[in-house]
Amino acid sequence: MYIDTEKARDFCNALFYAYGFSKDDSAVITDVLLRADLYGIESHGIHRLVRYDEEITAEQVDINAKPEIVHETGISACLEANKAMGQLTGVQAMKIAVQKAKTSGCGMITVRNSNHYGIASYYTEMAAAQDLIGVSMTNTEAICVPTFGAQAMTGTNAIALAMPADPCHFSYDASTTVVPRGKLEVFNKNNEPLPDFWALDEKGKPCTDAALVIKNIIAKAGGGIAPLGGQGTLHGGHKGYGLSIIVDIFSAVISSGLTSNYVNRKPDHTGICHYFMAIDYGIFGDKTSIRKGMSQFMQELRDSKKAEGESRIYTHGERAKEMMAQRINGQIPVNEKTLKEMRTIADKLGVKLPASFLLSQ
Amino acid sequence: MYIDTEKARDFCNALFYAYGFSKDDSAVITDVLLRADLYGIESHGIHRLVRYDEEITAEQVDINAKPEIVHETGISACLEANKAMGQLTGVQAMKIAVQKAKTSGCGMITVRNSNHYGIASYYTEMAAAQDLIGVSMTNTEAICVPTFGAQAMTGTNAIALAMPADPCHFSYDASTTVVPRGKLEVFNKNNEPLPDFWALDEKGKPCTDAALVIKNIIAKAGGGIAPLGGQGTLHGGHKGYGLSIIVDIFSAVISSGLTSNYVNRKPDHTGICHYFMAIDYGIFGDKTSIRKGMSQFMQELRDSKKAEGESRIYTHGERAKEMMAQRINGQIPVNEKTLKEMRTIADKLGVKLPASFLLSQ
Repeated sequence: MYIDTEKARDFCNALFYAYGFSKDDSAVITDVLLRADLYGIESHGIHRLVRYDEEITAEQVDINAKPEIVHETGISACLEANKAMGQLTGVQAMKIAVQKAKTSGCGMITVRNSNHYGIASYYTEMAAAQDLIGVSMTNTEAICVPTFGAQAMTGTNAIALAMPADPCHFSYDASTTVVPRGKLEVFNKNNEPLPDFWALDEKGKPCTDAALVIKNIIAKAGGGIAPLGGQGTLHGGHKGYGLSIIVDIFSAVISSGLTSNYVNRKPDHTGICHYFMAIDYGIFGDKTSIRKGMSQFMQELRDSKKAEGESRIYTHGERAKEMMAQRINGQIPVNEKTLKEMRTIADKLGVKLPASFLLSQ
Repeated sequence: MYIDTEKARDFCNALFYAYGFSKDDSAVITDVLLRADLYGIESHGIHRLVRYDEEITAEQVDINAKPEIVHETGISACLEANKAMGQLTGVQAMKIAVQKAKTSGCGMITVRNSNHYGIASYYTEMAAAQDLIGVSMTNTEAICVPTFGAQAMTGTNAIALAMPADPCHFSYDASTTVVPRGKLEVFNKNNEPLPDFWALDEKGKPCTDAALVIKNIIAKAGGGIAPLGGQGTLHGGHKGYGLSIIVDIFSAVISSGLTSNYVNRKPDHTGICHYFMAIDYGIFGDKTSIRKGMSQFMQELRDSKKAEGESRIYTHGERAKEMMAQRINGQIPVNEKTLKEMRTIADKLGVKLPASFLLSQ
């Protein structure tokens, strides 16, 4: 099933406005949300409206919150988000980072007490659009089990980095777990056993039973998902475990916020923390020449020898850019469950679904 | 077989002095080299003397080189290493980064045209010892095959990060490949098939034949090692591929140096590039409180529930610190091949092996 992109935008704007956000703020939240659908990352797009609805209803998100800078230097700031919507905090924080990068060469912003901020690459690409390197990280509720552990202690803890290049920016955005929770749900739905090394049961033993792992995650009964590199150390799981800690250091530790193991432990706030960085790479040399070198390196990767049976090597960000070109003036896919959730939320808020919202099946 | 740590230090100092390095420079190179042995990372310690000997003999390393700053701001510098020994360049660059962090809050140094610099954590821990966050990355000769590729394009491309904590700093140092080349050699020696997803043959097909993969790597005949997350995308190999690109961006692209796919392509220089960063985390808030929070988070990870059959969860850097405490006033292990290589190099340079060098078998 598909819906018209622009109608989806109008609808989301109307929803967020109905919650009480200003028109400008509603447009920002919608833009971050829809970008995920445009990029083909449906897990972080309108599919997630129901989660945001829950968080706003439970007052984990304070729609009137004004994030405030609690510590600042010429190259840094710590932002207390005061439970603001993650997308609003994120855009505000990256704007500060970009401003500092333009005046001081670099801006690093840590954010505490925020909320889920959507796709991390939205923010890094704000920096890349200004010809800067953008970095962002965010912690989440703990779902990732440390190497040799039996209890989730860190989140999916994404790392994103964008670096300007032509014709397509490099834009990396990935969790530090082997897979996100959504992937387990796909295996569960298809009644397929999980690949080895992906998940652990409540005793910390490797577990291929998706239903059991998901049940345990929901009940906080132990176990969870393995870090990138998988369960144990054989395939480098200790590396992914370390990367997930690094995300918590930059997001939570140096912002004096909550590390993943404390996120979402109270009914009225999530405590999610983020990190944003913008670097003017001109502080290392001639920008034109560096950007040309970057573009050449990306092209060499794409042009390098393909594996038998493969026709293309991607650089990160290419697929999303191509998907967005298709969808921006067209349609985005939506599944039946999401559509139903959208109707329920719209009814609750007294927002009308646009006429002929559903385009095709 | 073991050798006395202090005698090994004297011996290495004498070797580097015999090549023509000053006494001070010899002590620096030796200290970086032996730190790997003290940490239990023998692959990067005196085991590697023979590689450094080859690089010095081939004049890939210029023992008289003076690295020079070619671009500089209050928070950044680009260092042209002029083929200096990697350890000397690394220590010099991190000292500059630390100095800038102390005066400006942050120092980022890119380095081009250097050489193998040993363990990345040596440099990040220089920053941590000054109560700063330390970051370092280095590219290497291409050995890692991009997702869907058949040709190595990026290196083992290590990422290291150290953050002060008590009683033990967090110190992460890992390649962005699923395993380093040395691991393939262990499987080859033991005549064991490689685990799935680790390596690729010259057609880019998954390959468990360690001997074939190593042969292809040496002959530059195609194939190589998979990125962290393994071959293909199932276990997140595209994430490791992206991380290896990020290392090349910070090390090589923004230093206007050689990306991994050009490293070690000429007989008289390697062109290896590095990145160093020091951050005074006091630019985000009260250092005492942040450090306390970091120490608490590390302790919570170590104290979290263990997997059945496991007695301990580590935080990164703990093992190395414990190993060093054992070895610093004692002995370091050395294998027969390394000992033979040390004798050959010593003979060539007219350096005497200390009396009763070999302690036990």
